[in-house]
Amino acid sequence: MRLGMTAPLIAAGLAALIGTAAPAFAYDGLVQKQTFEMTGPYQTVGGRTIKQVRVGYETIGTLNAAGDNAILIPHFFSGTSHFAGKYKADDKAPGYWDAITGPGKALDTDKYFLIGVDSLTNINAKDGITVTTGPASIDPDTGKPYGMTFPEVQMRDFVNVQKALVDKLGVKKLHAVMGASMGALQTWEWAAAYPEMVERIVSVIGATFADGYTTARIKNWRDAVMVDAKWNKGDYYDKAEPVDGLALAFKLINIDALAPEWGEASFSRKWADPAKDPAASMDNAYASEAWNDAAAMARVKIADANNLIYLARANELFALGGKSTVEDGIKLVKAKVLLLPSKNDHLLFPENSRKARDLLQAQGNKVEYAELDGPMGHLNGVVGIAQAQPQIIKFLAE
Amino acid sequence: MRLGMTAPLIAAGLAALIGTAAPAFAYDGLVQKQTFEMTGPYQTVGGRTIKQVRVGYETIGTLNAAGDNAILIPHFFSGTSHFAGKYKADDKAPGYWDAITGPGKALDTDKYFLIGVDSLTNINAKDGITVTTGPASIDPDTGKPYGMTFPEVQMRDFVNVQKALVDKLGVKKLHAVMGASMGALQTWEWAAAYPEMVERIVSVIGATFADGYTTARIKNWRDAVMVDAKWNKGDYYDKAEPVDGLALAFKLINIDALAPEWGEASFSRKWADPAKDPAASMDNAYASEAWNDAAAMARVKIADANNLIYLARANELFALGGKSTVEDGIKLVKAKVLLLPSKNDHLLFPENSRKARDLLQAQGNKVEYAELDGPMGHLNGVVGIAQAQPQIIKFLAE
Repeated sequence: MRLGMTAPLIAAGLAALIGTAAPAFAYDGLVQKQTFEMTGPYQTVGGRTIKQVRVGYETIGTLNAAGDNAILIPHFFSGTSHFAGKYKADDKAPGYWDAITGPGKALDTDKYFLIGVDSLTNINAKDGITVTTGPASIDPDTGKPYGMTFPEVQMRDFVNVQKALVDKLGVKKLHAVMGASMGALQTWEWAAAYPEMVERIVSVIGATFADGYTTARIKNWRDAVMVDAKWNKGDYYDKAEPVDGLALAFKLINIDALAPEWGEASFSRKWADPAKDPAASMDNAYASEAWNDAAAMARVKIADANNLIYLARANELFALGGKSTVEDGIKLVKAKVLLLPSKNDHLLFPENSRKARDLLQAQGNKVEYAELDGPMGHLNGVVGIAQAQPQIIKFLAE
Repeated sequence: MRLGMTAPLIAAGLAALIGTAAPAFAYDGLVQKQTFEMTGPYQTVGGRTIKQVRVGYETIGTLNAAGDNAILIPHFFSGTSHFAGKYKADDKAPGYWDAITGPGKALDTDKYFLIGVDSLTNINAKDGITVTTGPASIDPDTGKPYGMTFPEVQMRDFVNVQKALVDKLGVKKLHAVMGASMGALQTWEWAAAYPEMVERIVSVIGATFADGYTTARIKNWRDAVMVDAKWNKGDYYDKAEPVDGLALAFKLINIDALAPEWGEASFSRKWADPAKDPAASMDNAYASEAWNDAAAMARVKIADANNLIYLARANELFALGGKSTVEDGIKLVKAKVLLLPSKNDHLLFPENSRKARDLLQAQGNKVEYAELDGPMGHLNGVVGIAQAQPQIIKFLAE
């Protein structure tokens, strides 16, 4: 099955990417960022200790008495807990999946207790809202940012922190875990780590492991930061920050997450300035290039470079259930699964979701599959999610 | 039609990428790099003057009396004139299309006069063999390298220099122009610029223009160099060179030119060192990451950073015939056309070749089309060319 995306949604997606206003939103209520702090030190999957772990979260809806109507929503690489609604009425844009959130929508605020959560080592550490623990956090032992002394963390660590959060919130069973991209990796890891607690997962533009091609690609994102001399081996917190390297990382991520159809629909070969022919000087840009420069610089202002490096690394380390093959990882999954890859995804390819579907079917899981359409490549799963609303509603009700 | 690639060819392709020995070669003869120098200054398409233009070339076979059996072979982004054979008997590997070069092969050395030519601003300026004119060349006015004062050049400039070369060699008609990737862009530009001279073009993993997505992606390659402080606005010729930035550029290019199937076939999630778990330290790498690091550093040793920047820019500037739409560009093409895109090309997508095919058919050109197969993505067109030998033989004979 192939789904579709309308032109206004494309425009909204572009607007969301560059931080300008998006159209009317679906969840007509305000949300509030809250802070969860783990009790005592946390031991990572890799065997290291983080003395104090804090992450942000936000909820919409009400947990029922049985504690079994919760949907957990981990976020994508550059996202946060903010999946829907606004913090303040005059926010420029609502959360990223606002279009499918609200009464009667897929993420039905009348039915479900929806929980969005900030990841460990979240990129947006400087946005003034996100709450995360990562290399930009203060190491209690030194009173200074961890920098590169922060331990490597993995998707399983993200999931374990979320498990402590949902336990504290009184959640007994997760009706579903639903996430896009890196959020989808976490849905898989939830299903493998806590199979008795996870009834359903919705893997949007997801993958069950980072293959050799993808790890090498993601390493390039980190390397972009590290090439900037101002990165200074991660020690830049009281100095000039590696702005250029971090901007390049975001430019790479943008292109890897988009698709040619996006370029054609939005820019084709238009010049950034109609008076400045790119053929006349290397200072003159194409419109798509200028867009990417501007979009990246907007991200740089709220991002921490080391957090991006650690988050990239966490994605490289991902293999479902810590198993060395997809086949072994999938065996751990007991949940019902809805797969929503994007047809023109050039980052986490739809072939990966198809393989997971086939393995799940072979072992008897209930599994549904539909391909997202649209010009946005990988990002169809973020900005084009509304096209899959009927499938998600049906899947969550079964 | 979909073609296939054998396992030994994949191994040979990988070997070629990292510069180790390749298996037995097809053209059993030595070739010699020669130098072509243009008479007088060259005026670029952009209206600037280059006082002295020199490029390298190499030929195999003999030009016939009519001067109409020549096949010109412009090269891909990181390539040179060296399409087949060896310079010395103990060279580690032959030229990149050696597999289809020789008596009775597609590039039949008994029938055709084959001409490979180094591009302007060739990346491999420091390999001791390539002859090119670009920012790393000495500016006759200053006695120092041009650096960023070198004028922007375009595919049409490459073609114009080649025109002067083939004229000097006595070529009256080009039986064909055949190139891969950036070489294919030049085949198209040849057909548009000199339609009366070009009987056929073979566009392997090619494109008829750089779309908005592709320009922004290729700009990232240049930006990778520029983020390195040692790039120093292009002024590094008597200083430490921007090794890290240039290496990152090559790492980006490698990943953009490969495909997930390559990663799975070659590495999957293997560690670079079986004793060093990537989960234990960020210093520990996956095998695919270590491969990419090593492959990039091998390129850095023979490359000039400014030449790469200018070559990337020339690719961004490409639009067939200098027209603002593909449709208008294609109208200039009178030649017979064979299109050989790669099925899993994530850099110059096969959709582009399909569109060109349809436009050519609609306007009455003779056009043939087949898709290359194999795990190497874009690079199937370089290392997997042998699978298309029957199609090329047939097309060149018609």
